[in-house]
Amino acid sequence: MKKLTILGATGSIGVSSLDVVARHANEFDVQYLSTYQNVALLFEQAQKFRPRAVAIYKEDSVHEYAQRFKEIGVEIVTGFDGVLELSRRDDVDIFVNALVGAVGLQPTLNAIKPGRRIALANKETLVLGGELVMRQARQVGAEVIPIDSEHSALLQCIVGEEAAAVQKIVLTASGGPFRERPETEFGRISVAEALNHPNWTMGPKITIDSATLMNKGLEVIEAFWLFGLAPEEIDVVVHPQSIVHSFVEFRDGSIKAQLGLPDMRVPIQYALSFPKRLAADFPRLDFSQLRDLTFEQPDYEKFRCLKLAFDALAEGGSAPAVLNASNEEAVHLFLKEMIRFDQISQIVEEALTQCPRNGRCDAATLLAADQTTREYVQSTFS
Amino acid sequence: MKKLTILGATGSIGVSSLDVVARHANEFDVQYLSTYQNVALLFEQAQKFRPRAVAIYKEDSVHEYAQRFKEIGVEIVTGFDGVLELSRRDDVDIFVNALVGAVGLQPTLNAIKPGRRIALANKETLVLGGELVMRQARQVGAEVIPIDSEHSALLQCIVGEEAAAVQKIVLTASGGPFRERPETEFGRISVAEALNHPNWTMGPKITIDSATLMNKGLEVIEAFWLFGLAPEEIDVVVHPQSIVHSFVEFRDGSIKAQLGLPDMRVPIQYALSFPKRLAADFPRLDFSQLRDLTFEQPDYEKFRCLKLAFDALAEGGSAPAVLNASNEEAVHLFLKEMIRFDQISQIVEEALTQCPRNGRCDAATLLAADQTTREYVQSTFS
Repeated sequence: MKKLTILGATGSIGVSSLDVVARHANEFDVQYLSTYQNVALLFEQAQKFRPRAVAIYKEDSVHEYAQRFKEIGVEIVTGFDGVLELSRRDDVDIFVNALVGAVGLQPTLNAIKPGRRIALANKETLVLGGELVMRQARQVGAEVIPIDSEHSALLQCIVGEEAAAVQKIVLTASGGPFRERPETEFGRISVAEALNHPNWTMGPKITIDSATLMNKGLEVIEAFWLFGLAPEEIDVVVHPQSIVHSFVEFRDGSIKAQLGLPDMRVPIQYALSFPKRLAADFPRLDFSQLRDLTFEQPDYEKFRCLKLAFDALAEGGSAPAVLNASNEEAVHLFLKEMIRFDQISQIVEEALTQCPRNGRCDAATLLAADQTTREYVQSTFS
Repeated sequence: MKKLTILGATGSIGVSSLDVVARHANEFDVQYLSTYQNVALLFEQAQKFRPRAVAIYKEDSVHEYAQRFKEIGVEIVTGFDGVLELSRRDDVDIFVNALVGAVGLQPTLNAIKPGRRIALANKETLVLGGELVMRQARQVGAEVIPIDSEHSALLQCIVGEEAAAVQKIVLTASGGPFRERPETEFGRISVAEALNHPNWTMGPKITIDSATLMNKGLEVIEAFWLFGLAPEEIDVVVHPQSIVHSFVEFRDGSIKAQLGLPDMRVPIQYALSFPKRLAADFPRLDFSQLRDLTFEQPDYEKFRCLKLAFDALAEGGSAPAVLNASNEEAVHLFLKEMIRFDQISQIVEEALTQCPRNGRCDAATLLAADQTTREYVQSTFS
């Protein structure tokens, strides 16, 4: 029986993670959950899974639930301090980080302990802190297992192979809702259009990132840290059907791919059960209905964010932190309809020129770069 | 340094195997080679790779080469007895069986020895003798590693996974040159048309089998023995581009595929280097050129041989031996223009009704079924 923490339990990945846990009640036991502010759903989850404690980020949303959690014997901690406190607790085998944004880094660092598995859906943890996190995990003997469908695909293709046999990885990208939209119309894209992803149902931040292809850029940086390849050994191919989740090419020219219907429960369950696979009746790809799988090169001019991510990875140091922070702020402004869709990449590009960067990768430097960049974007574009 | 025997050294697989060996002169050392009758090529190979001995099946083709082999210090053995004798020799780590047809079974049985690897391109070995060969290999601790691109793909997808996690395998088939030809025109297909495979350059027997889809049927039976699944857990999907070489579905719904350009050197090298991968500069799949991968269901009415193979597998015992022998004879008659293309499946179907079959799987029973079936086809259709 593996004991679990799930940070971000009420988001899309959190809910799917609890679906997986519910299917394997003999394998997994929930110890800790957190939410940003969806206390009603968190309470339902607590009733069902009976964690020892929950963290509620927005303290003012606790209200009448305080008493109800107490009645079912579930401790409440609040604020970001509460999240950090839960992430330090010891009685946990698998720490699922499904937080959104750079806020996920510190909890991950807290949670790295000998023998523990970090199941990572929070890609900013590695985008900002890849060097730090991977080094710390190696030092204490913790595992970092990805939950992203692409990185799970890569892990599944690499399992059983020698690390040195991997020559190249190719991340697939759906291309998002604007793959065929001319760049000249990018200024007129509405929030509603950008939130309408063709294949995946996800939270708003990652859905906008999928529309700009910044999501793929962040995944390239994540893959760099997870799989230890050079930036030029990581490539992206657009695959609108989202059936092939990624490719690995080996040094003998052989290629493996992992595929399946778009269903985050598959990579989540794999991250929990790895290296084993548990039986599950998730909907299957019907081979008798399989027709066309199409592929094309990404348009790096039109989807400038993807290019900027490769550039930030090549520069290294705090550049990915600047990339990520400026993107988070720009997406936030776009969701509030304060900037146009095409300004997202412009803001990121400007931040990468204007914001101070350096080559150090300690947590303080990275979080300072994150903070400075956010302030720059807010003061310049709000 | 692994010591190799290659039976069928002058055929398509044999030549590619020696290409792989030449690329890794520090890894592999050729001990024994055999040919059916291409003594000129065998002599060239012997000059280059300096085996201890060679077997020449057709004794009357030795002629003037006897002296030349002697001059380079290479022993000659002749006839099928010579092939059998080489297959029993001890100083070999990897035994590559690239013979064509049922004649490959006995050499494989001879070669199964503790710690030895059987690298199998001769699919009839398993079609006829799957139960016998796999049992004997398990008993003495020999490995059976497939060289077929499809079975190599399956092995590559399964490596690192628990056997129990495999739920289904799906073999891809190019569909051959007559995928879009109406069945009503099958009677008018010429030998030259049938020998013109769209994706792979192979010997005449397997090329005709690819045109009838019997090749895929034989591979289904081979997969059954190699991977220990139930017949209903093995499926076939037509994939005209021959880029995806096969799929494995796991019990969590995840699917893996192995893919690459059609190049037999990749699965051959994998069979020799397994579980490692050796670096090789075989032409790469260019992801920037990757466009459409298409899939469709096989037409079991039009390609009756594929259906008959599934039936023979379900019946078991000596039925696959009858299927294989009648097909070998029918293909032989077609290549000699003594029957029409559409008669190949008719002959196999008739043989499966007319020829005695039973449930025993010892070598004598299987070879008797093989012999009886050949005589039946020859006497009825020649």
